[in-house]
Amino acid sequence: MVNPILVELTRGGVVESRHRGALAVVDGRGRIIEAAGDVDAPIFPRSAVKAIQALPLVESGAADTYGFGEREIALACASHGGEEGHVELAAAMLGRAGLSEVDLECGTHWPLFDAAARDLARTDRAPSQLHNNCSGKHAGFLCTCACAGDDPRGYIGKGHAAQERVRLALEEVTGARHDPAAAGTDGCSIPTYAVPLCALAHGFARMATGEALAPARAQAARRILSACMAHPWLTSGTGRADVALMQADPGRIFTKTGAEGVFCAALPEQGLGLAVKIDDGAGRAAEAAIAAALSRHVARPEAREALGHVARHGLSNWKAIAVGEVRAVSSLS
Amino acid sequence: MVNPILVELTRGGVVESRHRGALAVVDGRGRIIEAAGDVDAPIFPRSAVKAIQALPLVESGAADTYGFGEREIALACASHGGEEGHVELAAAMLGRAGLSEVDLECGTHWPLFDAAARDLARTDRAPSQLHNNCSGKHAGFLCTCACAGDDPRGYIGKGHAAQERVRLALEEVTGARHDPAAAGTDGCSIPTYAVPLCALAHGFARMATGEALAPARAQAARRILSACMAHPWLTSGTGRADVALMQADPGRIFTKTGAEGVFCAALPEQGLGLAVKIDDGAGRAAEAAIAAALSRHVARPEAREALGHVARHGLSNWKAIAVGEVRAVSSLS
Repeated sequence: MVNPILVELTRGGVVESRHRGALAVVDGRGRIIEAAGDVDAPIFPRSAVKAIQALPLVESGAADTYGFGEREIALACASHGGEEGHVELAAAMLGRAGLSEVDLECGTHWPLFDAAARDLARTDRAPSQLHNNCSGKHAGFLCTCACAGDDPRGYIGKGHAAQERVRLALEEVTGARHDPAAAGTDGCSIPTYAVPLCALAHGFARMATGEALAPARAQAARRILSACMAHPWLTSGTGRADVALMQADPGRIFTKTGAEGVFCAALPEQGLGLAVKIDDGAGRAAEAAIAAALSRHVARPEAREALGHVARHGLSNWKAIAVGEVRAVSSLS
Repeated sequence: MVNPILVELTRGGVVESRHRGALAVVDGRGRIIEAAGDVDAPIFPRSAVKAIQALPLVESGAADTYGFGEREIALACASHGGEEGHVELAAAMLGRAGLSEVDLECGTHWPLFDAAARDLARTDRAPSQLHNNCSGKHAGFLCTCACAGDDPRGYIGKGHAAQERVRLALEEVTGARHDPAAAGTDGCSIPTYAVPLCALAHGFARMATGEALAPARAQAARRILSACMAHPWLTSGTGRADVALMQADPGRIFTKTGAEGVFCAALPEQGLGLAVKIDDGAGRAAEAAIAAALSRHVARPEAREALGHVARHGLSNWKAIAVGEVRAVSSLS
């Protein structure tokens, strides 16, 4: 099965590039409301499931033990830009549990947000593991270990209690078996499991509705999504699509991007979960496709319009001359 | 027609992303030696045709008037990384014709090579138009205008003598009509024309063989390709695929990348031109696909092996853990 074209890029009226992919919109009971392409093929969700991976942090009581509010929980779900505010909050989270940057095992990279990388260079600093876009999630893993009394060393490993908690949460919420033998290693070194796209969408519908989840888990899920919706910048960063998407209807849209063209979302009021995977891994296409899908299900016309600007927007060159556009194809029909 | 998968990306043994595209290998007479996908569909070559766009600089005598050697001609064909050596040479080229950075109309962006961008920031400098990856090409346009006595202002425009010279060279070499009405605007603001992929490959076979070109043009083409093959770093930059590809068989392989997943190449000894367009615009796939195609036509086993490392290579994460690979699919069969 060849997936359909979900997003096109034009230049001077000619289609220059095309992105194929699959898209699923699912309700809390697992009913497929909308589907395009092969939604049963397993895909790696990568960072798009960080909100589900944060369930143990909240459910275990670790978040309350260390006094984490919405901001800390939002950062625990983040693929952040490595900006000052992200880095400081990640360090503060670790500090509350008596830990620090040296306990992280996510690795170091220059901030994803270019201007933040240049700011570091301008002041003659080098990046640390706190600048890794996953440092908030890893701070959450470490704090959960500290609270549970687990030895945090090796917390990124497939057999470690931290990753077992995450795997069990993912399995229950998505309803898809997460076979450790079929796992890959994520950019930040934790296991990532390929699951069907429709299971991912179902997982986010469950996160939003609590359907078939125990009350404590349903409450933790609501608390996590609310935290991210209240602080979209903390879960992503300056100029990122997650900010534009969540601000299109504040408090009513949850979204989370993942590497290699994955985007997940939830509409709590509609009780829907959404998931997109672009075959070729392009983030630019995933954000346009999820925006178009969200725009078909939101209630408010202003939200629909704001999402439309992400689903279809102009492209300009280095002299700010308009050269073409990125457009979700299904949003045109 | 759906183009075939040319490149796959794996993670932990699972194929995570796929890139479809078209590929053509053509000889000087226009005979198709190898083809995959739709090689007749028009595509924008973008920067992949800079060597053809540099023909007027050499043919007009401007290059000789200003004493340009291989290094300057290589930079006139470059999509460079904005590194110190690129920027200084572009400035020197302009200086020989009594021009400077202010005459450029390519626009300003931070260097493509991240470390060069951070070096600028570290020393509290901002980028100029000289850091634009196309500044060498634009210096070539301006020097050609200066030598011909054309008013250089507006040299990026569709009707300007500079762009007319370029369009006529492209039309003759590729054998494809370049209709100004069907042009798009490139990243550096000059016109770019969509032409069939097989015409692009044919164009590079002609650049390599001189087939059906007037002697002066054939000689200029040879001089341009030789200059790029002698100075691959000047036509691209640190860590770039063009360097690895041209160094796989020094002096025997010419390559040039273009935005949105285009890669062109020539094998002068075999008299072949090659062109790849990845449907989704991914550079990572274009470089693997062209490497695989080149490896099927080079003579020396060492060259085949070196190209194989670009066609198929491991991927590691922020902690240098092996997580998967990028691999050209056709190179496996």
